[in-house]
Amino acid sequence: MKKTDVLVVGGGPAGIISAVTARRYYPEKEVKLIKSVDKGVIPCAIPYMFYSLKNLKENALGNAPLEKNNVEVIVDEVTEISPDKKCVTTKKGEEYCYEKLIMAMGSDPVIPPIAGADKENVFAIYKDMEYLEKLADKIKEFKNVLIVGGGFIGVEFADELSCRKELNVSLVEMLPSILSQSFDAEFSAPVKERLEKKGVKLLTGVVLEEILGEKKVEGVKLSGNEKIDVDCVIFGIGASPNTKIAREAGIIVNKGKGVWVDEYMRTSEPDIFAVGDCAGKRDFFTRKGTAILLASTATAEARIAGASLYKLKLIRENKGTIAIYSTYIDGLALGSAGMTEDTAKKEGFEVVVGLVEGVDKHPGTMPEASKVKVKLIFSKQSGIILGGQVAGGMSCGELINVIGVAIQQRVSLNEFETLQMATHPCLTAAPTKYPLIIAAQNASNKM
Amino acid sequence: MKKTDVLVVGGGPAGIISAVTARRYYPEKEVKLIKSVDKGVIPCAIPYMFYSLKNLKENALGNAPLEKNNVEVIVDEVTEISPDKKCVTTKKGEEYCYEKLIMAMGSDPVIPPIAGADKENVFAIYKDMEYLEKLADKIKEFKNVLIVGGGFIGVEFADELSCRKELNVSLVEMLPSILSQSFDAEFSAPVKERLEKKGVKLLTGVVLEEILGEKKVEGVKLSGNEKIDVDCVIFGIGASPNTKIAREAGIIVNKGKGVWVDEYMRTSEPDIFAVGDCAGKRDFFTRKGTAILLASTATAEARIAGASLYKLKLIRENKGTIAIYSTYIDGLALGSAGMTEDTAKKEGFEVVVGLVEGVDKHPGTMPEASKVKVKLIFSKQSGIILGGQVAGGMSCGELINVIGVAIQQRVSLNEFETLQMATHPCLTAAPTKYPLIIAAQNASNKM
Repeated sequence: MKKTDVLVVGGGPAGIISAVTARRYYPEKEVKLIKSVDKGVIPCAIPYMFYSLKNLKENALGNAPLEKNNVEVIVDEVTEISPDKKCVTTKKGEEYCYEKLIMAMGSDPVIPPIAGADKENVFAIYKDMEYLEKLADKIKEFKNVLIVGGGFIGVEFADELSCRKELNVSLVEMLPSILSQSFDAEFSAPVKERLEKKGVKLLTGVVLEEILGEKKVEGVKLSGNEKIDVDCVIFGIGASPNTKIAREAGIIVNKGKGVWVDEYMRTSEPDIFAVGDCAGKRDFFTRKGTAILLASTATAEARIAGASLYKLKLIRENKGTIAIYSTYIDGLALGSAGMTEDTAKKEGFEVVVGLVEGVDKHPGTMPEASKVKVKLIFSKQSGIILGGQVAGGMSCGELINVIGVAIQQRVSLNEFETLQMATHPCLTAAPTKYPLIIAAQNASNKM
Repeated sequence: MKKTDVLVVGGGPAGIISAVTARRYYPEKEVKLIKSVDKGVIPCAIPYMFYSLKNLKENALGNAPLEKNNVEVIVDEVTEISPDKKCVTTKKGEEYCYEKLIMAMGSDPVIPPIAGADKENVFAIYKDMEYLEKLADKIKEFKNVLIVGGGFIGVEFADELSCRKELNVSLVEMLPSILSQSFDAEFSAPVKERLEKKGVKLLTGVVLEEILGEKKVEGVKLSGNEKIDVDCVIFGIGASPNTKIAREAGIIVNKGKGVWVDEYMRTSEPDIFAVGDCAGKRDFFTRKGTAILLASTATAEARIAGASLYKLKLIRENKGTIAIYSTYIDGLALGSAGMTEDTAKKEGFEVVVGLVEGVDKHPGTMPEASKVKVKLIFSKQSGIILGGQVAGGMSCGELINVIGVAIQQRVSLNEFETLQMATHPCLTAAPTKYPLIIAAQNASNKM
């Protein structure tokens, strides 16, 4: 039996940040981290391992931040948690006992139970370097690739793989449009256009019914009885929280939505915390359970848990997830934060929307100027911002974070319209035309 | 005598945005705008007219937004305001009477009263296309140029002019370092280095005492009795609010700091508003009068005034200026918002600072990755954010606006540390290393 003060289970961003934050707030405590995957990867950059990055190893998620922070790293798999004994047991037969346990076990990609899903050359996006290296090797043999799922992972894979001129890339999405969870039609339409121009065959409103072939994938059967020949199927339809050992330990798990946690990421068992994909999430606005699994949310949660292990050092609520993220498709940067217009309406909000198209430098003839499109969504009665979407050049990467801070601070349309923003010809739109402000004004006009 | 409902005096960003906002909120009102300079320029891009922009006309500030919004534009100069009659008179002898008057008369560049300042080839940065065209023409004849003032205008001019290989560019600044109003030493030092590498001779801690020459500039005398040969002197030492006609009209003007205004940009006279450089400013934190003249502040004020002309439609306070701006020097983007560490200490705040250096893509080997440096300054007791500085790649243009919203919302260190931020390999730093969060954590460690 081995002992430690703080034990973190999981080596992804949530686990790493939990351990590092624990070290920072409680320097006197011993911190150990157990991870099941020896060689991890930076999750968000997985798609870029298949064309953009010269060397797969560039995307390794190393142990350097852990070692630097004096966190002992153990490669093993936790198979059981005993909350009463305050110990875990592992696949290798070890027992580790803890004062405080942080579960950061992440999620596993979903492979739906359709016929043929067990065939050779069916892949999903595991955060495991060895697995992805194998996929990268195999892809060299393929000619026709089918991606399943039109969320951002599927779309990023389609963009990246379609850079390989030798591949025919198809993408199947059961909903009527791609990226519909995060973007309204004005924003997903240009992505569709770009992917199609690159030769990606987009099959929206179509369901994958069966994977065909002897041992290996040879084709798929789609709804409408269409059959297409493919050598490979890659699932990017989402991930399912790893809560099995938590459930077996009697820790309360939300219905299909991860481990139940309080404001400080504490579970139903004393001294056990949960963070990241395996922890339950609530929506920032509705407080409903939500299945949005993002590294941005995971690391924010890890910082709350790491700080709150022994004392509640960050006196604040976990406001829930605003589902903030960005992506980059064929040279178009996109960001989304909070609710889309469609989601807000479905949730019962009355909304007022501001939409603007502009340019991200000034004058627009400055070198490297890109078009930029911004949409802001406000609650009609309260005036509070509910969400935002941006599309355009590289500046969108941080532009969405400007909106994100405003959402998290529940800024009203009144305030948003007269925010002071830095502008510079080489870096941003003009002060007279700064798109976030103009979008707010457009919304204000409709109030 | 001509009549209008709303009369705006001044055709810069503050004037334009006032007029356009008035039109938007009060569509039934007639709006006229009088401007003294026929062909204006986009102020922030003036430095880029001397090398980067192919054609000076690209930086014209056109009347399109005014015409599109049905604002009548008059080229003339207001010489007198009669608040009792509610009329103005102009140089061309016209009289315009108004229901509501918005003064957006801007500022004029300061030329100090030193010997020789009236010689030929002494320039200042007027926002006037014809003047700047003349300067651009003249520069072709010069070999040795002296820029006076190491604030952002002087530094941007030095950067731009030093791209012209035929020019020897010197810059004189009386303070010990350049950009010291907006940046602490860690941020101004790399700018100094870059300018010097480009061949700019930086003379800091040096005072320009006299401009020498017969009729034309032939040289200058500096403190320490040094003389250098120059063909041209360009002043970029700041601007002075245009308040002469306001003062003559009996409107209260702050001591050297622009026209006194209330929360809604109303002056001491009923129905007269003032916005932009000619209006008094207060500091966001100390509420003291401040002479920071930025287009970002001006346009925010114009939006408040335009909305508040007849009814107080935006029920909010004018929180004062956070002095938010960005610049771009020899490929290095820089942004500053709120107080620097130096300023905060001088003002009497006890501060805790977080400083981090990172990279703005992830992994750092992604194409177009740049280094990024972030500094955040928090009040030690209250934990409230007081300021931030960023330096690095193009992403800094919007990164400073993320900080800006946080400052305007008075975000605490507690909240800042666990903000949710969108991250993407092609667009931002990793979620585990997002520099704003890491800088906040570094500050938190010192609390």
